[in-house]
Amino acid sequence: MKIYDRNTDPVEFGRVMALTDGVFAIALTLLVLDLALPAQASGVSLGEALVGAAPRFWAFAISVAVVGTHYLTHHENLSMLQKVDIGLIGLTIPYLGLIALIPFAQSVMADRPEEPLSLAFYAIVLGCTSVIAALMLLRAHRHGLLREPLKGRKAQLEVMRNGLPIVVFFTSAGLAFLIGEWTVVLWVSIWPLDGILSRLQKRVA
Amino acid sequence: MKIYDRNTDPVEFGRVMALTDGVFAIALTLLVLDLALPAQASGVSLGEALVGAAPRFWAFAISVAVVGTHYLTHHENLSMLQKVDIGLIGLTIPYLGLIALIPFAQSVMADRPEEPLSLAFYAIVLGCTSVIAALMLLRAHRHGLLREPLKGRKAQLEVMRNGLPIVVFFTSAGLAFLIGEWTVVLWVSIWPLDGILSRLQKRVA
Amino acid sequence: MKIYDRNTDPVEFGRVMALTDGVFAIALTLLVLDLALPAQASGVSLGEALVGAAPRFWAFAISVAVVGTHYLTHHENLSMLQKVDIGLIGLTIPYLGLIALIPFAQSVMADRPEEPLSLAFYAIVLGCTSVIAALMLLRAHRHGLLREPLKGRKAQLEVMRNGLPIVVFFTSAGLAFLIGEWTVVLWVSIWPLDGILSRLQKRVA
Amino acid sequence: MKIYDRNTDPVEFGRVMALTDGVFAIALTLLVLDLALPAQASGVSLGEALVGAAPRFWAFAISVAVVGTHYLTHHENLSMLQKVDIGLIGLTIPYLGLIALIPFAQSVMADRPEEPLSLAFYAIVLGCTSVIAALMLLRAHRHGLLREPLKGRKAQLEVMRNGLPIVVFFTSAGLAFLIGEWTVVLWVSIWPLDGILSRLQKRVA
Repeated sequence: MKIYDRNTDPVEFGRVMALTDGVFAIALTLLVLDLALPAQASGVSLGEALVGAAPRFWAFAISVAVVGTHYLTHHENLSMLQKVDIGLIGLTIPYLGLIALIPFAQSVMADRPEEPLSLAFYAIVLGCTSVIAALMLLRAHRHGLLREPLKGRKAQLEVMRNGLPIVVFFTSAGLAFLIGEWTVVLWVSIWPLDGILSRLQKRVA
Repeated sequence: MKIYDRNTDPVEFGRVMALTDGVFAIALTLLVLDLALPAQASGVSLGEALVGAAPRFWAFAISVAVVGTHYLTHHENLSMLQKVDIGLIGLTIPYLGLIALIPFAQSVMADRPEEPLSLAFYAIVLGCTSVIAALMLLRAHRHGLLREPLKGRKAQLEVMRNGLPIVVFFTSAGLAFLIGEWTVVLWVSIWPLDGILSRLQKRVA
Repeated sequence: MKIYDRNTDPVEFGRVMALTDGVFAIALTLLVLDLALPAQASGVSLGEALVGAAPRFWAFAISVAVVGTHYLTHHENLSMLQKVDIGLIGLTIPYLGLIALIPFAQSVMADRPEEPLSLAFYAIVLGCTSVIAALMLLRAHRHGLLREPLKGRKAQLEVMRNGLPIVVFFTSAGLAFLIGEWTVVLWVSIWPLDGILSRLQKRVA
Repeated sequence: MKIYDRNTDPVEFGRVMALTDGVFAIALTLLVLDLALPAQASGVSLGEALVGAAPRFWAFAISVAVVGTHYLTHHENLSMLQKVDIGLIGLTIPYLGLIALIPFAQSVMADRPEEPLSLAFYAIVLGCTSVIAALMLLRAHRHGLLREPLKGRKAQLEVMRNGLPIVVFFTSAGLAFLIGEWTVVLWVSIWPLDGILSRLQKRVA
């Protein structure tokens, strides 16, 4: 099994981040495609068109924030690595496949805002992404790829931070059928909760 | 709060630029999509099609220049950094969301050139982008992330350079309803004005 | 002939990987475009639409895995390099042209799942990609660009690992007309077979 | 005027290449979009569709080679740099705008193969790209950004190598109206001619 160290194999180590950054950049940019307004030829004035597109602007803003949050998690998790191995690079592939699915899931949600299944689908895509992100950290932990081993309270907080979006997204996928578009509130709740855990982590570190 | 230094954490420091460069690359490339000519099947000759598309070629050239200017500002502002922290990476996300909106705003403007709101919308997107670029520099200044602190005349000039596009774009958003497509002249005026400030900066440095 | 060493010309050495990572990132993201569901306006419920799209989700998952496998091979092959020369960069161009064709070939296959030619076409694109990947390694071997020369049993295993997908994909292109969609099983068989070769390689190393 | 050295400011120096690599990666990938085959619903068999698309496959292959050649030139020219300054980064923006136009020009040419203007337009886009590539090298030469100054026979050969595509593309833009699709032969002639110059360069170096 080949292992690439950030100091001795900077190119090989860095490529994993480069591929990931590329997919994130494209996913962020593709989110815009759902904003398409009716053309002028449709006779709708731009003002009306923009007002009519307001929900899609909201969906865009939320998806940018969601993709961005995944990016921040990925950035922070991978900053803990000293090395990558082929297994970790292998996990990157389905991770990126899921990131690539986010603009698709958003467009389904934008097209069918009142079908709860569209919210559930979006939540499941995000939940799966979080699962793989957590598996990447787990593999790094198990195979000694981390800069410094995770132990005790620190490890516990890391588990909580990585588990939080998994629990929230999968739970919200089920709740979507009961609470409809309020599901979005659950997703947004991840940010303050993660902020609290992050503060606790700083105290421990 | 994690902080990444350009010397000790080159991968983590560099990823912020890599993601940004990716989004800029895609935004630059997406600007082309609005150039689509009528297909041959429409019976329009290529000469007529190109002449008819002249305004869109202009819009393309201006948008490439506008996106490019944002890139140059970002490149210069981030070259002043010694470190990035999670807050700065967090600001990068809405910044990139706005950069991704530029091709969209351009396509709205190309579709509805005589509706002033399309110019105002474009100007607002660019103004907001400049606001976040300035906030990134401000955060770097406040949290000691700069290579060398900004002080006195130097700081003043940096404020003016970062404030200039904000003032011009938001003012032009309002003026668009009075002066129509002449708004573009205001935008273009940013280049010579910024050139003057840049020359002053060199003398001070 | 210019030659760029990973230690003395890190920028020039790294650009080859950066361009490649960019194309892989875009190809991975474009695979999603074939998932497009019927719009709500079509009267199809989301549940039905998702069930109807199941084969396309499978095709997406397989293509992500296929592109990912090419990425892993490229990552591993190029990690053996000490230097790149203009000839190797030149080989990268058709390689990337073929990677860019994968989403196209997938979309043909998704549109015409019961025409064996669509499977054969996909297999030929993948086979050609593997041929160029092998040529890159061969050139590196012949021109002394490798970190350490490939010899004996190690070289033999490298030939087998690089030859495996070439043989499987070109064979499967012919067999597609006999066994139809079972061709996919052949492709998937590359993974366990490559896993065995990889294990042998580790013992030798 | 800020100047970034490859040794002391690796991040700032490298970003110019990163942005460029991103645009090249996207341009390479967008070339595929013109290959779109008639859908199965059209009643055309895949065999007929592929045969009918043969000219577009040729156009794709030529454009990949053309974009790739620009990439190789850019890679080689920029490998001569020790530093980049804001002026050089500024020249990168229109350069990338033109690279982004290549898939557009190719799609025009694919749609209207028998209108010579489509060939002329393609040639002009490529000629302008080569002009800016040459201007970048000229600026580097004039502002002392090169690793080692270009002098005598070496400088002469560099001028010829950078001038060759400019002369060929602009000449071919005019000739397209006389010789029609044979223009492509002129373009292809750049490769062997550049090969000869490259060999001469090696002898001098």
